[in-house]
Amino acid sequence: MSLLTDTIRRIGPLDRAAMEVAQSRQDVLTKPRGSLGRLEEIASRVAGMTGNARPVCRRRTIYTLAADHGVASEGVSAYPREVTAQMVRNFLAGGAAINVLARHAGIDVVVVDLGVAVDLGSPPGLVSRRQGPGTRNMLREPAMTREQALAAVEAGIGLVGEVDLVGTGDMGIGNTTASSAILAAVTGCPVEEATGRGTGVDDATFERKKMAVRRALEIHRPDPRDGLDVAAKVGGFEIAGLAGVILGAAARRSPVVLDGFISGAAALLAVTLCPQVCEYLFAAHLSAERGHAVCLQWLKLRPILDLDLRLGEGTGAALAMSVVDAACKILDEMATFESAGVSGPR
Amino acid sequence: MSLLTDTIRRIGPLDRAAMEVAQSRQDVLTKPRGSLGRLEEIASRVAGMTGNARPVCRRRTIYTLAADHGVASEGVSAYPREVTAQMVRNFLAGGAAINVLARHAGIDVVVVDLGVAVDLGSPPGLVSRRQGPGTRNMLREPAMTREQALAAVEAGIGLVGEVDLVGTGDMGIGNTTASSAILAAVTGCPVEEATGRGTGVDDATFERKKMAVRRALEIHRPDPRDGLDVAAKVGGFEIAGLAGVILGAAARRSPVVLDGFISGAAALLAVTLCPQVCEYLFAAHLSAERGHAVCLQWLKLRPILDLDLRLGEGTGAALAMSVVDAACKILDEMATFESAGVSGPR
Repeated sequence: MSLLTDTIRRIGPLDRAAMEVAQSRQDVLTKPRGSLGRLEEIASRVAGMTGNARPVCRRRTIYTLAADHGVASEGVSAYPREVTAQMVRNFLAGGAAINVLARHAGIDVVVVDLGVAVDLGSPPGLVSRRQGPGTRNMLREPAMTREQALAAVEAGIGLVGEVDLVGTGDMGIGNTTASSAILAAVTGCPVEEATGRGTGVDDATFERKKMAVRRALEIHRPDPRDGLDVAAKVGGFEIAGLAGVILGAAARRSPVVLDGFISGAAALLAVTLCPQVCEYLFAAHLSAERGHAVCLQWLKLRPILDLDLRLGEGTGAALAMSVVDAACKILDEMATFESAGVSGPR
Repeated sequence: MSLLTDTIRRIGPLDRAAMEVAQSRQDVLTKPRGSLGRLEEIASRVAGMTGNARPVCRRRTIYTLAADHGVASEGVSAYPREVTAQMVRNFLAGGAAINVLARHAGIDVVVVDLGVAVDLGSPPGLVSRRQGPGTRNMLREPAMTREQALAAVEAGIGLVGEVDLVGTGDMGIGNTTASSAILAAVTGCPVEEATGRGTGVDDATFERKKMAVRRALEIHRPDPRDGLDVAAKVGGFEIAGLAGVILGAAARRSPVVLDGFISGAAALLAVTLCPQVCEYLFAAHLSAERGHAVCLQWLKLRPILDLDLRLGEGTGAALAMSVVDAACKILDEMATFESAGVSGPR
């Protein structure tokens, strides 16, 4: 049995008993019933995911996966391709936005090379799971083979260790193009709705980008019910890897906080492979990138934050993981009406 | 010159030069321009408030002000009046939601008695600024005298020390009734739109509550342009005190993160006393309490979070202060394209 098949088999339903115990406790904490709104809902869901009625989020990790994209040579991004490798070095030096926000929230960042064009060597802190020097150009041939797609997903599964709360992050010049293609392929939504301006492309580049997504889908006709087929034909190594991280976390009963648009595309792949995985997901935020709203609607996830972010790296996940952590602390640490000697409602 | 007059005089415009320097720096940090959305906007506003182009939020304090309300005897709340004092003791013992969330975000909580019905004595940690044993019943007479309203505002001003980021919080059974009356008085919005279910009252209580707000406004006809008149006739000691905290913070150029509905009502009072104070405000979240949306619209503030909270105490402020802190860290700690050796856009 392959690692992927085994992982999918281990993903079970939420623990309804733990959720009920958690909800009963929320109802006797010193606050009007339900007055902490979504924080209460989040904590109860974490109870169901972990099977622990008073879950804690002590070990918090964001997996930031990086890779390059052959389609970048079509001029679909505002930035040159070498930025992927440069930003990985920035992550390792601690100077990127994800480093600042992860430090702020006490979260570990695991930086993983899934296939950056430049061989980065083995600098301290970099985890290497290279599947090749970037994907191929999906306007000429499939982005990768089905074997590579499987290997990338399984590499992602293998990354997830003993963690209480998992976040996803990405880096890859060209990866909003691949993600738009995945979104249109899996959900069937029009390319116009699936494609946004990514890092901030001008009008001409934006037209080229939409054309690239449209043509890639016409050429390859990926099977919307088969995440490996979609990943192979129009995906990316880091996106397939993130699908693996999501599946691996859910198999360990760890809640997953999805970052933005790229992580959303990875979740679409994961859900075609195992629909049940959806129950283990939180959407960190609603990205300003066009298409993300469609993606979250399809996943039936309501974003925790709405801050017009569109950076990726796991930045939105870092902020939202802090909210999930806070929600669990409310459930665990607050006094009850009885323990605090506070009168309940009349 | 009174403390209030002096404080209002010290509230100046935002420092546009500091904001421009902050924005220029945001534009050369290693991320696509504008890709951190509202985080960038928040950090630039803090730069303008503080006059520091790289502001830090090292000392973070929430002022949680408590008082009782004479109108509670009309049966407008789901909870008995003694809960105000019981919850103050819960704050001091560290078992309330505000304690959990403030610990989570590394924020100090200053608990202040502005006029709880029961004399709480001098337990460790309680700051006493009692203006009386609760307000009077506004359906029979003004909630307080104009002198008391001024004293409560000035007590609030006096609370604010050397702090980088100020949050507001409240506790007081009956205080959504007073806040609805303030909202309708200052903005002129219909009582129906200004009044919600507070801690979660049933239909009969809700009708009684709306009637109470309507009658109090009919009896007293507070002057919408005079915050002291509104506070005296239909306000509360803790609400007037929070208006003072807001004014005191702005006079020290400290950003203020408003919690929910009660804090919003306090901000309305503060803005009638000094319109410029609005520039120093962030709205932490959009409360589930009816009327809060109207309030934020009038203040022209877009909430940072939307988590269906309706607890008060400063709970929403605690979570949003963490976001403001993170936004400032992004501005201060991130590498630039030049320092990190990352290529800019083509």
